[in-house]
Amino acid sequence: MGSPEDLDYPQIILQYSSGFLVSKVMFTACELGVFDLLLESGEPLSSDAIAACLGTSTTGMERLLDACVGMKLLAVELTPEGALYRNTEIANIYLTKSSPKSQYHIMMYYSNTVYVCWHYLADAVSEGRNQYERAFGISSEDPFGAMYRSEEEMLKFMAGQNSVWSICGRDVLAAFDLSPFRQVYDLGGGGGALARACVSLYPNSTVTIYDLPKVVQVAREQFVPPEEHRIAFHEGDFFNDSIPEAELYILSKILHDWDDGKCRELLVKVHKACKPGRSGGVLLVESLLNEDRSGPLETQLYSMNMLVQTEGKERTAAEYSKLLEAAGFGEIQVRRTGKIYDAVLGRK
Amino acid sequence: MGSPEDLDYPQIILQYSSGFLVSKVMFTACELGVFDLLLESGEPLSSDAIAACLGTSTTGMERLLDACVGMKLLAVELTPEGALYRNTEIANIYLTKSSPKSQYHIMMYYSNTVYVCWHYLADAVSEGRNQYERAFGISSEDPFGAMYRSEEEMLKFMAGQNSVWSICGRDVLAAFDLSPFRQVYDLGGGGGALARACVSLYPNSTVTIYDLPKVVQVAREQFVPPEEHRIAFHEGDFFNDSIPEAELYILSKILHDWDDGKCRELLVKVHKACKPGRSGGVLLVESLLNEDRSGPLETQLYSMNMLVQTEGKERTAAEYSKLLEAAGFGEIQVRRTGKIYDAVLGRK
Repeated sequence: MGSPEDLDYPQIILQYSSGFLVSKVMFTACELGVFDLLLESGEPLSSDAIAACLGTSTTGMERLLDACVGMKLLAVELTPEGALYRNTEIANIYLTKSSPKSQYHIMMYYSNTVYVCWHYLADAVSEGRNQYERAFGISSEDPFGAMYRSEEEMLKFMAGQNSVWSICGRDVLAAFDLSPFRQVYDLGGGGGALARACVSLYPNSTVTIYDLPKVVQVAREQFVPPEEHRIAFHEGDFFNDSIPEAELYILSKILHDWDDGKCRELLVKVHKACKPGRSGGVLLVESLLNEDRSGPLETQLYSMNMLVQTEGKERTAAEYSKLLEAAGFGEIQVRRTGKIYDAVLGRK
Repeated sequence: MGSPEDLDYPQIILQYSSGFLVSKVMFTACELGVFDLLLESGEPLSSDAIAACLGTSTTGMERLLDACVGMKLLAVELTPEGALYRNTEIANIYLTKSSPKSQYHIMMYYSNTVYVCWHYLADAVSEGRNQYERAFGISSEDPFGAMYRSEEEMLKFMAGQNSVWSICGRDVLAAFDLSPFRQVYDLGGGGGALARACVSLYPNSTVTIYDLPKVVQVAREQFVPPEEHRIAFHEGDFFNDSIPEAELYILSKILHDWDDGKCRELLVKVHKACKPGRSGGVLLVESLLNEDRSGPLETQLYSMNMLVQTEGKERTAAEYSKLLEAAGFGEIQVRRTGKIYDAVLGRK
């Protein structure tokens, strides 16, 4: 960046321009089931065979496969019978529906919901608010009302969040030794993937997923296996209903949905409910911005997404510490995981 | 790619997922005039000042600026009075409207037209055809009827193409010594940036821009300065109207819009019109795919865009050579420029 060659030909700008093409190629190959088919088939397939199996045009499929080769999601072998395609290892692990680390659901959420909202980014910046109204014709007053506007949308969102925890959950929970905390409430715990990671990492803990009634119902029926007795449920709205006493409250990607006033209101309520002394604490799981505004880019982009989809923003460690202190928490510690999500622990 | 760390945490997949966020941040900063303002101001500005000048929210603008810092399009300095932002050099050259190498117009075309079409990529792959109907509710029978559906859209497209030639035009024209060709026809020459690059590089040439009447009218009025006497215009539809005799025909990003049948039809017509012998030739300017399907990724993505927006596709050098030979051209030479667009020369 900034070298004479870069300035003569703006490679980086062309790459940024093509960013949405790259996203949509990956999302579409996932959506059409390319990676699932190639995993199941167990052998390389021609583009004609893939198009026939998936019921698509051959001209479209061939190009989609070739673009996936350029992105190293597929590998191609030229044989006398023509080109044969297979998944790369990274595609097998992360882009097939059946893999335990599958990112399929978050991709579908990105592709079908977030992509549409982001078409109105200029409006979001101009107006300083989310864009559900322009994108989907629904009121943006209540972001979760908008995000959960149908059971299908809610399911997509919950499954998407679970995908995230399948690759980051263990890291944020292992950032601190949480084993002294036995009774854990996961506020806004949604589909429960983080709760499951927690009882797996800390076998003596029990985790209660506290979320809206309709979310809890779906989590119970579709996401958390009934034999998992260390996970319980509590139906409620943490802004309007009471929060029961517990040792540790996890607020994972919750504060980033709300402005400072709402965050303070929620943290004060959590502080009141929390067991006193060193046996009580709160764990914030968020993507942390650098204090000097330099990055990380991923988090800066997520902060823009909070503008487009919620009432919140991403924050720096200092900003979260200040919010925690204002609510009465102390001994605040910050751990960066090196992945997207980091952990901040405060004690009562 | 494929190393154990990559497989433990799919950095590349997260980057692909965020591709559309990156695109839209850059497009939006261009659209709102951030880079223009910072160029004009001549000094670093605070996010509040920028938001006030551009009439946007402060919360949205601050985040947009920070994301541009992460993308190295802006630089930030933390001062006692707060953060101050300025353009990086690459932004000054390529993202301001007034720069001779400005990519502003192609970005606006990408952001407001191509982004919308690409929401329907899965449909395009399934059906094997362009998506004007789903994206804009207009018939996709005639792609240029759809692309030029309003004067505004046509202008955006023409200005966008001119942006491309401002960074690639000289390279594709210098790939071969075209000085022996004096009479040049640029078929589908649109806004004329390539024609202007041609008469600048080859001062003894005259270039006639052959395009649809409404395109020629706009090119004449808005894009080509009247004092440029080496550039002439010819109104016509090269599929349905006659093509006058010339020494060299430039087909720049034309064949990629059409299927093989239409390409052959057009090339046969060009071959007939072309001056005979070594003084007659055709120059194809296209982005060339590798023969082994390995890339370049940018070209593979453009080929998908041809699916989404046209009746054509990107091709390999061998495929273009075959099309040229079938129409009667010989002595075919291929030159790669190292930038997006390459050059293929055939002689009558």
